[in-house]
Amino acid sequence: MRTDYCGELRADDIGREVSVCGWVDRRREHGEHLAFIDLRDRTGVVQCVVDERHDLRSEYVARVTGTVRARPDGTANPTLATGEVEVGDCQVEVLSAAEPPPFPLHSRTEVDENVRLRYRYVDLRGERLQRNLSLRAAVNSAIRRSMEAQRFTEVETPMLVASTPEGARDFVVPSRLHPGRFYALPQSPQIFKQLCMVGGIDRYYQIARCLRDEDLRADRQFEFMQLDAEASFAGQHDVMAFITEAVFAAVEATTGNRPADPITMSWTDAMERYGTDKPDVRFGLELVELTGLFEGTEAKVFQVECVKGINCKGGGGSLGRNAVDELTRKCRQWGAKGLAWFRVGGNGALDGALTKFMSDAEQAALGPAMGAEPGDLLLLVADRRQTVRDVLGLLRLELGRPPVTEGGLHFVWVTDFPLFESIDDQGRPISAHHPFTMPHPEDVGLLDGAGEELLAVRSQAYDMVLNGWELGSGSVRIHRPDIQRAVFRALGIGDDEAEERFGFLLDAFRYGAPPHAGFAFGIDRLVAILAGEENIREVIAFPKTQSGADPLSNSPTPISDRHLDELGLHVLPPPAAG
Amino acid sequence: MRTDYCGELRADDIGREVSVCGWVDRRREHGEHLAFIDLRDRTGVVQCVVDERHDLRSEYVARVTGTVRARPDGTANPTLATGEVEVGDCQVEVLSAAEPPPFPLHSRTEVDENVRLRYRYVDLRGERLQRNLSLRAAVNSAIRRSMEAQRFTEVETPMLVASTPEGARDFVVPSRLHPGRFYALPQSPQIFKQLCMVGGIDRYYQIARCLRDEDLRADRQFEFMQLDAEASFAGQHDVMAFITEAVFAAVEATTGNRPADPITMSWTDAMERYGTDKPDVRFGLELVELTGLFEGTEAKVFQVECVKGINCKGGGGSLGRNAVDELTRKCRQWGAKGLAWFRVGGNGALDGALTKFMSDAEQAALGPAMGAEPGDLLLLVADRRQTVRDVLGLLRLELGRPPVTEGGLHFVWVTDFPLFESIDDQGRPISAHHPFTMPHPEDVGLLDGAGEELLAVRSQAYDMVLNGWELGSGSVRIHRPDIQRAVFRALGIGDDEAEERFGFLLDAFRYGAPPHAGFAFGIDRLVAILAGEENIREVIAFPKTQSGADPLSNSPTPISDRHLDELGLHVLPPPAAG
Repeated sequence: MRTDYCGELRADDIGREVSVCGWVDRRREHGEHLAFIDLRDRTGVVQCVVDERHDLRSEYVARVTGTVRARPDGTANPTLATGEVEVGDCQVEVLSAAEPPPFPLHSRTEVDENVRLRYRYVDLRGERLQRNLSLRAAVNSAIRRSMEAQRFTEVETPMLVASTPEGARDFVVPSRLHPGRFYALPQSPQIFKQLCMVGGIDRYYQIARCLRDEDLRADRQFEFMQLDAEASFAGQHDVMAFITEAVFAAVEATTGNRPADPITMSWTDAMERYGTDKPDVRFGLELVELTGLFEGTEAKVFQVECVKGINCKGGGGSLGRNAVDELTRKCRQWGAKGLAWFRVGGNGALDGALTKFMSDAEQAALGPAMGAEPGDLLLLVADRRQTVRDVLGLLRLELGRPPVTEGGLHFVWVTDFPLFESIDDQGRPISAHHPFTMPHPEDVGLLDGAGEELLAVRSQAYDMVLNGWELGSGSVRIHRPDIQRAVFRALGIGDDEAEERFGFLLDAFRYGAPPHAGFAFGIDRLVAILAGEENIREVIAFPKTQSGADPLSNSPTPISDRHLDELGLHVLPPPAAG
Repeated sequence: MRTDYCGELRADDIGREVSVCGWVDRRREHGEHLAFIDLRDRTGVVQCVVDERHDLRSEYVARVTGTVRARPDGTANPTLATGEVEVGDCQVEVLSAAEPPPFPLHSRTEVDENVRLRYRYVDLRGERLQRNLSLRAAVNSAIRRSMEAQRFTEVETPMLVASTPEGARDFVVPSRLHPGRFYALPQSPQIFKQLCMVGGIDRYYQIARCLRDEDLRADRQFEFMQLDAEASFAGQHDVMAFITEAVFAAVEATTGNRPADPITMSWTDAMERYGTDKPDVRFGLELVELTGLFEGTEAKVFQVECVKGINCKGGGGSLGRNAVDELTRKCRQWGAKGLAWFRVGGNGALDGALTKFMSDAEQAALGPAMGAEPGDLLLLVADRRQTVRDVLGLLRLELGRPPVTEGGLHFVWVTDFPLFESIDDQGRPISAHHPFTMPHPEDVGLLDGAGEELLAVRSQAYDMVLNGWELGSGSVRIHRPDIQRAVFRALGIGDDEAEERFGFLLDAFRYGAPPHAGFAFGIDRLVAILAGEENIREVIAFPKTQSGADPLSNSPTPISDRHLDELGLHVLPPPAAG
């Protein structure tokens, strides 16, 4: 039907008779009974010179057969890959007529997203989604090749699984053969991949569909794809190397460049220096520890657990009073009592409302501690350590975070996460990851502690962070029953509860479990960053809206009473408004 | 943790200090306080000579560090890849103890399948599943590479879709944000891939998870994987070439050999010569048309629409009266009135109960028509044509079908399927594929016919058959509204019904649909054939039982009342027995 793709014709093809197929991108009338048609397919457009009598309107589908020739002198278009040539002496076959498109393909961002999703098939034709979906396919392909080269075996785990009491809310699937019972859709293949390790698969990977019934937002859909991997007889550094290799292969395949090696940073370092476990190291503005400097201070505001600051370079001049007030308002919103600020004068002296409460020594030490130079603006928060870190972490992003397309790709491995993220109101710790995460070997003894002491236990969990986004996380898993019992004991999980919640995994571990470790990362987000998109919906072919609906197929829909009967279900009437 | 895989040590490694990790496959006591341990990982086993005091029982997980050395003279094991060497001077670290396995790994086929699925992680360690899952991964990988080389773009289509009134029963997923409404899980990405074509994706592929709520059997699971593909500006022969290339790449990657080119056979030929649209051409025993031979016969039994026969070569001697009676019984069970049989004597004369009703000419002609030689057994069925084909098709398999592992790989493309498979009791035709299948260009005019006439309309649908298994099917799709209307009219589908059932796809076609064609085939079945397995459960990591349950995770399970409330659902009490 065609001999060539539209976007691939070049001067080398001059003189060839070709057939190209595609959509009418643009039509321009030309003298002498002729019209210029830009015919478009996924590779781009080519100009065809056709008889003006052909009914070829926007988005009509046509096959054009003609001869490739050089464009007349002075009419070549250097911005177009096919700009030196055109197809002349054309025979035209209209393959499909088309109604006028519901929105213009080349200015789609102005269009309401519901309309774009309703007519997603039109939206898909545009250059942006074509490029993003191609990039996505290239990422998947490069990841798979890399994992296979590293001797990982792809194993497909089930979609209809047991509902687990962990994590987010499951989507469930009623069983017809077992009425009143439900399958769950997998939030991740976590348990199955660990079973694969017990099953001797040795190195498992899968680009897996995962589903979570959570409320949606820009970086979340009900469904997402993750690279899921697990390796036996492997530790943290092995897994970090495997995943780095796969991600870098994807970056190289799509950008042509291998990124700089990742930085490795402990969780504590990340929190102290960047105020977050997802440090965006594309820019500076690091948090400076000032607690020691204010030890024994007379200033009440600094008589707290922790004082830290950010030196906003040059901000003394560029940020006026209103801007600083706005930052203060935000810091309060994020949980701080306030924001202390000082402008650095030409002589290095500090100018700010709090200087009058500070000693001369404190005033003299603050600037050097923060690397201050004339014209800088020093922003300090004093509070409980966790609050200080959180607030300054957000302030730092507010002050300096570049758009997704700028600053290159900076990968960070964050390691040594705490095993427990907090203590609940009954004094029990809460797992930071899942309860099979292996503690740090140096900290196993600390598991016998209680309450706050347990927060010091580090784990062998690690996250991969790219430009401030958490791409994914992993951990070494517990394969030894004695350590698992100690962790369950710390979490207050008794034998019966452990059996009920994790029984079949614990059973499996009794039959010979190898040491193993794994990782999972979200492909949607990686692709979005590589595509320069802020919203993952721009890298998904058929996304759902924020309400979880699909305006194209109109799902979700009611189902028939007969189908409900077969499933042994009854739909309740909506609760009365009140 | 390890330097080498167990199964990869060779004579070249002699003298190296190595660390290997794995499961204790076998232990044999040896003189001089030593024991032989066969340590197993996914690559195979290696013999380690260890101190007998190590507590290393069957399926314990261990790390063994020692020196590779030649086995003593006369003790090499040529049947084992590592049979020339052993690991000596071993340090042993037990990584995990193990309870005795619930069944012996090396004789698992004797074990009840429920037990094997309950302990699937033990079953997975055996050589058979390790080999099958590796083969499966290699098939996926080769298919993907081939599709990508043919410029297909992988697009991931949604799992939460609209319930469609077509085909098998959908699995449904209740929506929490829209109580009383349901998503469906996709039976295939059919509609989305056609939308991709309207969206200019040009060539789409995906190894897609599909789900159907159908009763299970050996070759069917709720979930299955299919290579799903669609191409624009492409016709039947393009798609057949694309798919052949992908399947052949998979065969070559896993067997080392490229199979013989596929035969192409029309549906009518397949039905007439093999009695089925899934011809197994690994063996002969073709159906011979005899209707003409019996034209004007006096024998009542042959005064029917159709007479065909199979020449069972040598069967006159090998099949006794009881065997023939058994075949007759089966033919009746399959729907025939009986089975006519004739033994071919030494002089070529026929011996059989029906000869006395046949003319001399008929008797003389029958043998030559069927290529009969002395000692053959001629088996005839006379009935309506469809019955004759069906019964002889099954009889042929009964007589000659080799096991899955024998006879090589014989691919057949079956083309020119009828557009309609039968006529319902209201005289309306029933679609053989889906109602978007393009009619054969020569037969479009026949769409104006009625009743039986419509059965003569051929379609541009095609199946790929391997050794008598339907691997998959595809078709050219209708992209022209006029032809679609004619097909809907023939099917008795009015505008309103078309809008309700297929509205959003028909809508899409109004905005510029390219001509397109596609295909889908089941990876489970291809892998099973390549692995020499009769049952697809042997090539799936975590299959379900015939009742759709998973004895390992115990799914499906009840869910909490709170969860049901959130979904706006009530579980009905089981219907009273009666």
